[in-house]
Amino acid sequence: MSQVQKLRINFKTLEEFKKFRENGLEELAMHEEMQSKLIEETSESPFYGIYEDGKLVARMSLYRIEAKYDRYFDPPQDYHELWKLEVLPGYKGKGYGSALVRYAQSLGLPIKTNVRLGAQEFFIRLGFSPVKYDPARDRGENPYVWKP
Amino acid sequence: MSQVQKLRINFKTLEEFKKFRENGLEELAMHEEMQSKLIEETSESPFYGIYEDGKLVARMSLYRIEAKYDRYFDPPQDYHELWKLEVLPGYKGKGYGSALVRYAQSLGLPIKTNVRLGAQEFFIRLGFSPVKYDPARDRGENPYVWKP
Repeated sequence: MSQVQKLRINFKTLEEFKKFRENGLEELAMHEEMQSKLIEETSESPFYGIYEDGKLVARMSLYRIEAKYDRYFDPPQDYHELWKLEVLPGYKGKGYGSALVRYAQSLGLPIKTNVRLGAQEFFIRLGFSPVKYDPARDRGENPYVWKP
Repeated sequence: MSQVQKLRINFKTLEEFKKFRENGLEELAMHEEMQSKLIEETSESPFYGIYEDGKLVARMSLYRIEAKYDRYFDPPQDYHELWKLEVLPGYKGKGYGSALVRYAQSLGLPIKTNVRLGAQEFFIRLGFSPVKYDPARDRGENPYVWKP
């Protein structure tokens, strides 16, 4: 099993990101930022990934939300928002997704994520639970949370 | 072309919702609310839809966000958050998606939505534009906005 690592965001990584389905404005913004600043790398990446066969095969994004913005935990606390958890076709079923989530759990903060249809069982096995849906806050999301 | 209508949320509508891919905690919460209150219908639905052949074939959700929570428009103003825009397989390509979005536009408020990969062109044709990505606010979303 390869190891989870914090990704260095550079043009090579952004090229690898294009293989993932959830590639959008966030990656585009990173690309523009690198071009405009004429720098090779930024350390502000919220992305973590797993390399196999010399290429990025799984990734997730983790962003620390401050307690003052917390609307999911009681009492309000710092937590990690997890998104863009994705394993490339051909590399699924090997535990890469779980390895990424377990890595996030090892960081010690509670986690909130928006679970897509079909992924509920995966997150429940990892100890997550659905929240009580709040339309004004959740706006169509399916938020699941995990506490250490 | 059938007309867009505000959906009455009742057990029948929730049964129809099950045919849509994006069916999650929001629909579950509505179901539980109806059961616990022992009422037949709620008028608080944010859903709009189009019926064809006697069944719901397209839907979207629209939620009015107050200006004080606005982080997308300048100056801050009331706007509609649009989500769960979806047309059933077999009914795509007939203009139902555009009809729903045009209906939202006819309500006169700006609109913000999270655009999935592959739907960018659709929203651009309808006058939407991508925003400047803000990681703390957007957290992996692909926000597009439209102004009247």
